Amino acid sequence: MEVPLFIQCVFEFLGTLILVVLGCGVVACVSLRKSKGESAGWIVVTLAWGLAVMCGVLIAGPYSGAHLNPAVTLGLAAAGKFPWTYVIPFIVAQILGGMLGAMLVYVFYKDHFDATEDAESKLGVFSTIPAIRNHSRNLISEIIGTFVLVLVILFIGDEGNSSQVGLGSIGALPVALLVVAIGMSLGGTTGYAINPARDLGPRIAHALLPIKGKGSSQWSYSWIPIVGPLLGGVIAALLYCAIKAMM
Amino acid sequence: MEVPLFIQCVFEFLGTLILVVLGCGVVACVSLRKSKGESAGWIVVTLAWGLAVMCGVLIAGPYSGAHLNPAVTLGLAAAGKFPWTYVIPFIVAQILGGMLGAMLVYVFYKDHFDATEDAESKLGVFSTIPAIRNHSRNLISEIIGTFVLVLVILFIGDEGNSSQVGLGSIGALPVALLVVAIGMSLGGTTGYAINPARDLGPRIAHALLPIKGKGSSQWSYSWIPIVGPLLGGVIAALLYCAIKAMM
Amino acid sequence: MEVPLFIQCVFEFLGTLILVVLGCGVVACVSLRKSKGESAGWIVVTLAWGLAVMCGVLIAGPYSGAHLNPAVTLGLAAAGKFPWTYVIPFIVAQILGGMLGAMLVYVFYKDHFDATEDAESKLGVFSTIPAIRNHSRNLISEIIGTFVLVLVILFIGDEGNSSQVGLGSIGALPVALLVVAIGMSLGGTTGYAINPARDLGPRIAHALLPIKGKGSSQWSYSWIPIVGPLLGGVIAALLYCAIKAMM
Amino acid sequence: MEVPLFIQCVFEFLGTLILVVLGCGVVACVSLRKSKGESAGWIVVTLAWGLAVMCGVLIAGPYSGAHLNPAVTLGLAAAGKFPWTYVIPFIVAQILGGMLGAMLVYVFYKDHFDATEDAESKLGVFSTIPAIRNHSRNLISEIIGTFVLVLVILFIGDEGNSSQVGLGSIGALPVALLVVAIGMSLGGTTGYAINPARDLGPRIAHALLPIKGKGSSQWSYSWIPIVGPLLGGVIAALLYCAIKAMM
Repeated sequence: MEVPLFIQCVFEFLGTLILVVLGCGVVACVSLRKSKGESAGWIVVTLAWGLAVMCGVLIAGPYSGAHLNPAVTLGLAAAGKFPWTYVIPFIVAQILGGMLGAMLVYVFYKDHFDATEDAESKLGVFSTIPAIRNHSRNLISEIIGTFVLVLVILFIGDEGNSSQVGLGSIGALPVALLVVAIGMSLGGTTGYAINPARDLGPRIAHALLPIKGKGSSQWSYSWIPIVGPLLGGVIAALLYCAIKAMM
Repeated sequence: MEVPLFIQCVFEFLGTLILVVLGCGVVACVSLRKSKGESAGWIVVTLAWGLAVMCGVLIAGPYSGAHLNPAVTLGLAAAGKFPWTYVIPFIVAQILGGMLGAMLVYVFYKDHFDATEDAESKLGVFSTIPAIRNHSRNLISEIIGTFVLVLVILFIGDEGNSSQVGLGSIGALPVALLVVAIGMSLGGTTGYAINPARDLGPRIAHALLPIKGKGSSQWSYSWIPIVGPLLGGVIAALLYCAIKAMM
Repeated sequence: MEVPLFIQCVFEFLGTLILVVLGCGVVACVSLRKSKGESAGWIVVTLAWGLAVMCGVLIAGPYSGAHLNPAVTLGLAAAGKFPWTYVIPFIVAQILGGMLGAMLVYVFYKDHFDATEDAESKLGVFSTIPAIRNHSRNLISEIIGTFVLVLVILFIGDEGNSSQVGLGSIGALPVALLVVAIGMSLGGTTGYAINPARDLGPRIAHALLPIKGKGSSQWSYSWIPIVGPLLGGVIAALLYCAIKAMM
Repeated sequence: MEVPLFIQCVFEFLGTLILVVLGCGVVACVSLRKSKGESAGWIVVTLAWGLAVMCGVLIAGPYSGAHLNPAVTLGLAAAGKFPWTYVIPFIVAQILGGMLGAMLVYVFYKDHFDATEDAESKLGVFSTIPAIRNHSRNLISEIIGTFVLVLVILFIGDEGNSSQVGLGSIGALPVALLVVAIGMSLGGTTGYAINPARDLGPRIAHALLPIKGKGSSQWSYSWIPIVGPLLGGVIAALLYCAIKAMM
């Protein structure tokens, strides 16, 4: 069954929306005041972001391949595994999904946004903020983090790892755990955007929404979680192709 | 093998009972005084609720489909995947299972209930209590949380995610992890009932049991974790059907 | 291939040994002084006990069925799924495995035992100690905890949950996660022995080993984590048989 | 398809590199100053090391068998499951992968290395440091930890645990969880190197890199996480062979 491009984009939109509802949702849960999960910490943030990816993949996987991430879309295209003509529509759908997903998180946690004073805590629910601001180093972080993401995704999809039978819903697990690993290990510097749609979409939502005492959307930083992941994804694709060409 | 309705209800009862023994059990373990798990926090609560669902599914899955939740039952019926005539018997069995499960938790943790002063901590073992009381916002929380639950469940059961072979006991994992994700990300406001049987059954048990210093069963709030999940489940079913109709 | 009883007992011995090395090991890691995992808490204890079971099952599963627990052996026999004549040899092998496993943990963590003052912390590495001492309530805890364990195990092994193909090493996961769930939810009162070999074997080791400042082995409590699990296992088996007889 | 030795070594190199990027990465994330994961604790360290192994296995598994560890390579050779002539090239590739992986972690977390005063915290990102320095006891720890690792790996690969169909990417999970278990339970004394390439490679990187205020590379301890794991791996292989010979 060949799924039409428009339907695939609907699934990219919906999958990214669920990804961001759960992903930005956990940051809200852990960092906003009076939440039942307040201060639950890094373990909860990193696990939930991985499971958020799992949920998006469960929805979109069979129909659009569940990229849910422009860096994955670009990386797969660069590796010759995805048509270049689909790249822009996929990315637009992903960003729109991220935007609407973040708006739902705001609707969900509005009372807790109102109860929170700190403006950076509010922005942090939507978009990443580096721990130590240093643009070139932050860019390296996003490149390396996304490089690991896309490289392992390419090997998960490699024929060497294919099952003789479909794994069904269980097949979403390795990518989810990969995202947990990257979060726990490589999330300490920039907060691992590793996905431009996950950062830009919610940042636009932050700029548009009438959040009480919301402060800056930090647009001067916003290019790093876009450019870094795209570069990292392409580098991973090139390395993957080089290795396969050797064999 | 077509399982008779009565047997299916026995499995819904038993599956929900085990779900609530482990689910309300972890809240007792984490929040009652002198428990070995006291203050183990959000990570333990959310993981254990997900695993509680897994255990219920392992028992009831092959025989009743393991709804264990009126919102799932109603959503599946609305999506045309479950006979409407079975809806009421399933829901009754689920609520009774939730009730008896909560009673077992009380028998299990009685000495720790006695050692705990705070009345809300005791009610919290049984039923959900919102972090910030705001009926319309709390309702939105339960709607969105259950919408995500039922939407992803419908896609897990979708033919796109079916394995060529049965996954056996491993097939219970994706739903379990979905519940973990919802808890971690969308549990911060109302404590994610997302299941009327899980909230109403134990609340009835709380009202009936002779718990020392138990305080109010908070019936004025009790309709929210019933109406919210049912609405969320139906909305998810309608969206699922609309998407499938497009294809 | 029918595995001879003696070989099966070797696997029960080795599987229980590994189970206890990792299970008692995590309690040592979390509770003894100067350990790198000191105070890592309930989440680590409960996850690691579940993974300890997984490791034991990976070793013994294909050859002895990996009971690793007299309550499982007795429950399976009571359910007609295991020959009564094998019960005693299996239980002896399990207890010996538990004993030697605990001795290895002592050898491993000896410097940290020496650095720890509190005698109950040392005993706690070997055997369970109730949070609130109340023999009848503690007995109920062990009965209910093991009832859940054996009931879900029986349903995991039920033909309804069988995969059309062997799951291989992944098949050990559901039991592991079941043990995590029981620990997190029903571990708060007695510390969830739910396995006489896991409690009695290490308690014998505690009595025999020349541990500095070791204090009492608390033999007056030791019958509860034996009798409770055996009763809970048999009750689960009877309920399982009653349900299957209805169908 | 027989993969040439050189290609296999490329995969051992790349797999170990990713293993160490994520493994040493999580120690950096948790222990360096101002990291977003600072003080996230033992649960995060142990889970991420396990997932790091999973990622390495996803890359190298289908092509080199994903040893990623000289103790595994030696143990498999001793068990007759791997050609002796491949042992040295594999080990060299693993150590080089570990070295380069650790250098990438330094590049990634450089600003946080600079923000951290304590020299042992910096070395701890690269190599293991015992909690209580006692060479003979530390050696026993590494022997026992690696013994459990290699023994369970041998049983995971045993024909008794083979699936009738390939598990695909899911097949990497049991080893990952085994590493989590060993970390949580047997990591408290020496920090569970259990892999000479994971310790020696990064230690060489630590010695070479111009890290601000880096202190000693502690070469006097460095033989223990080499000799201990190699011994533990061989003992596990001998026990495995002895058990299989009985059958």
